[in-house]
Amino acid sequence: MPKKVDHEARRQEIAEALWRIASTRGLDGASLRDVAAEAGISLGRLQHYFRTRDEMLLFALRHINRLAADRIRARIEALAEGPGGEPVREPTPREVLRACLSGMLPLDDKSRTGLLVSAAYFARAVHDKTLRAEAENGIPQLRAFFAGQLRLAADRGELPPERATEDEAMLLISTADGLATYVLLGVHDPETALRLLDLQLANLFGAERA
Amino acid sequence: MPKKVDHEARRQEIAEALWRIASTRGLDGASLRDVAAEAGISLGRLQHYFRTRDEMLLFALRHINRLAADRIRARIEALAEGPGGEPVREPTPREVLRACLSGMLPLDDKSRTGLLVSAAYFARAVHDKTLRAEAENGIPQLRAFFAGQLRLAADRGELPPERATEDEAMLLISTADGLATYVLLGVHDPETALRLLDLQLANLFGAERA
Repeated sequence: MPKKVDHEARRQEIAEALWRIASTRGLDGASLRDVAAEAGISLGRLQHYFRTRDEMLLFALRHINRLAADRIRARIEALAEGPGGEPVREPTPREVLRACLSGMLPLDDKSRTGLLVSAAYFARAVHDKTLRAEAENGIPQLRAFFAGQLRLAADRGELPPERATEDEAMLLISTADGLATYVLLGVHDPETALRLLDLQLANLFGAERA
Repeated sequence: MPKKVDHEARRQEIAEALWRIASTRGLDGASLRDVAAEAGISLGRLQHYFRTRDEMLLFALRHINRLAADRIRARIEALAEGPGGEPVREPTPREVLRACLSGMLPLDDKSRTGLLVSAAYFARAVHDKTLRAEAENGIPQLRAFFAGQLRLAADRGELPPERATEDEAMLLISTADGLATYVLLGVHDPETALRLLDLQLANLFGAERA
């Protein structure tokens, strides 16, 4: 029987080595060789999975975005559950938006590492069309999903209909992105970023009912 | 007479070489040697002015921020001038804020280059406390200036007093930062970013009077 190699698992191991570098000294200047050393494999083996640094970066970004999406999904499901885990109600569009947007902030170690990988991606993608495609496709999908939640909120009478737009959705995404940037730069702490995100939501939906 | 060298001018020339690299292939992976070659000087001479890549990056960032501030100041002065250049009126706080915030967007080649240098700074600063100090000190100053403009607007009856806060000022900065990021990533064009910035201002101040 031929030796079975789980390629996807190996790629994830390499991505995790990349994250460890991202969350400590940073990816700027980190070579394929550095990542191979961190993953405990030879450069040749690493290149079997990723030919270039950008290919590896893109894989790491997608994988970390997938994990972030899983965390957000779990948080939305938790909103809808009673104390015993039984489903009790649908979360409101505002709650869904808050869960997604706060998932964009570095509120814990995992999301912080994710954002450091995103920062490395950003610095490369501004100069590389192939890398940019990830954001060019992904962000409009997120914007459309957010706009759908805003329309749902308007239908439920929780938002003035004229504010249920793609533009307002893009403002929410941009604000969360900027708030996260200033956490990573040490301008404010994660709790302040979350408070300001809630202010942006309150400015849109109105003050929250207790 | 000893040969007179204008050190500041030489440092600016080197910073400009750095910007040319930043606006084309990017600073990620660009070495001191690459910048020396672009500036047309030897590595040894370059190291006379900047010992490390981070020192050079910080100088370039400060210089480009100074130029951006000059452009914003000129734009605010232009707001206050009649067709013949004579001062006619004080610009409103809202106009001042719009001039500052739109100066954070890549609306032309100069501001685009500035943002690419900022992107390189961001990628390094998240891992370096010394580099971060620039944002840790600079952004609260900007936030305080914006909050002052908001209070002025409230005093003039142009803004509900409860929204004249540091928090609202920080939301404006964060939103502009995020909008700029998504221009560099090709998600939307500069005109869209400006339109969304105006929407954020309209959500704060109310729709603009024609």
